[in-house]
Amino acid sequence: MDYVDVGRESGPGMGVEAIRRFLQDLSVDHPPYAPPFLKAGKLVIAHAANILHYIGPRIGLAPKAEGPRLWAHQLQLTVTDFVKEIHDTHHPIANSLYYEEQKPEALRRSQRFLAERLPKYLGYFERVVKANGHGCMVGRSLSYVDLSMFQLIEGLRYAFPLNMQRIEPTYPGLVALRDKIAARPNTAAYLKSPRRLPFNDKGLFRHYAELDEIS
Amino acid sequence: MDYVDVGRESGPGMGVEAIRRFLQDLSVDHPPYAPPFLKAGKLVIAHAANILHYIGPRIGLAPKAEGPRLWAHQLQLTVTDFVKEIHDTHHPIANSLYYEEQKPEALRRSQRFLAERLPKYLGYFERVVKANGHGCMVGRSLSYVDLSMFQLIEGLRYAFPLNMQRIEPTYPGLVALRDKIAARPNTAAYLKSPRRLPFNDKGLFRHYAELDEIS
Repeated sequence: MDYVDVGRESGPGMGVEAIRRFLQDLSVDHPPYAPPFLKAGKLVIAHAANILHYIGPRIGLAPKAEGPRLWAHQLQLTVTDFVKEIHDTHHPIANSLYYEEQKPEALRRSQRFLAERLPKYLGYFERVVKANGHGCMVGRSLSYVDLSMFQLIEGLRYAFPLNMQRIEPTYPGLVALRDKIAARPNTAAYLKSPRRLPFNDKGLFRHYAELDEIS
Repeated sequence: MDYVDVGRESGPGMGVEAIRRFLQDLSVDHPPYAPPFLKAGKLVIAHAANILHYIGPRIGLAPKAEGPRLWAHQLQLTVTDFVKEIHDTHHPIANSLYYEEQKPEALRRSQRFLAERLPKYLGYFERVVKANGHGCMVGRSLSYVDLSMFQLIEGLRYAFPLNMQRIEPTYPGLVALRDKIAARPNTAAYLKSPRRLPFNDKGLFRHYAELDEIS
């Protein structure tokens, strides 16, 4: 399915400025609260999980039947919660402050996150992939939830290398899934392309060595 | 539509213990990560927004057509994010710690929340209700999103009475919607019934006077 990544293109009607303008345009009927959002014909769909829910069955990355489709969405909503908690390890007070302005709080939050939340979420996803029994999260074929698992493991390895090295052996199903996704020709080509943004110190997954050293 | 609120009933197979048992039952194919979840026939649906997405069109509280249904869901997912931020004003470090163990951080987070996040979210929802033009959030009739707006305003009034008193005049559309919902016979009956749990110091919306006094 063809698409244009408006925020990353330049030229008329493209770029971050075009997205800002759209969000503030009072003539837009169904304005998103924030990016990301997808324009698909007349529909404007916001929230990563909602976009995946809409597009998944249309591009063969989610089941079409209601039950399994809702199950995939449910898993993705748990990913959403997890990702928010990962983000808040480095920004526990406010997004509008720099990390350096909330470092003591970040240390405290990360400590709790690494001790309590990280194993709870990964343990849950490991349980799901194991119970499913087909080396993937939903049903018998690849879904967007598997791609989310790949991105979670990659991001966590970047952000918390010491902790991940220590705990990864506890989650063999997730690691095997991560490896399977990485080895797929399409994923491998994407990972080598400029479409793949490297992890960095402005994104959701960030590496601050001091936050990784505390558990 | 009939339902049983398992966590609040007592007797065999009921109560909080029954929910805990279900979550830990390894024979459950599609285990929820956490409550709330809905058992509807063979389906087990977790996440409040997902439950509403499933049940909304079936009980006349959401449009059936895909576009408007996804729009309602999108708004509810923004409610989810907002609610998480409201919760984190009193628990910015960890859920496993008491409020009293994270009070300096809660003060700092609440200050930013009241100055930046509260007006941003309420301003967004006010824009949506105004743009819609029918005194409700989605289309021409009542939806679960309107009930969520009611609960948000009620909860915020409980948690941050001083701040809400100050800023409410800025959001006349939301306040009118709140009043309309409260006046509906079914809602009024629910609010007077024991099914309505009063706000308290264990829930999501909590009142700590010191957090309300800082903005």
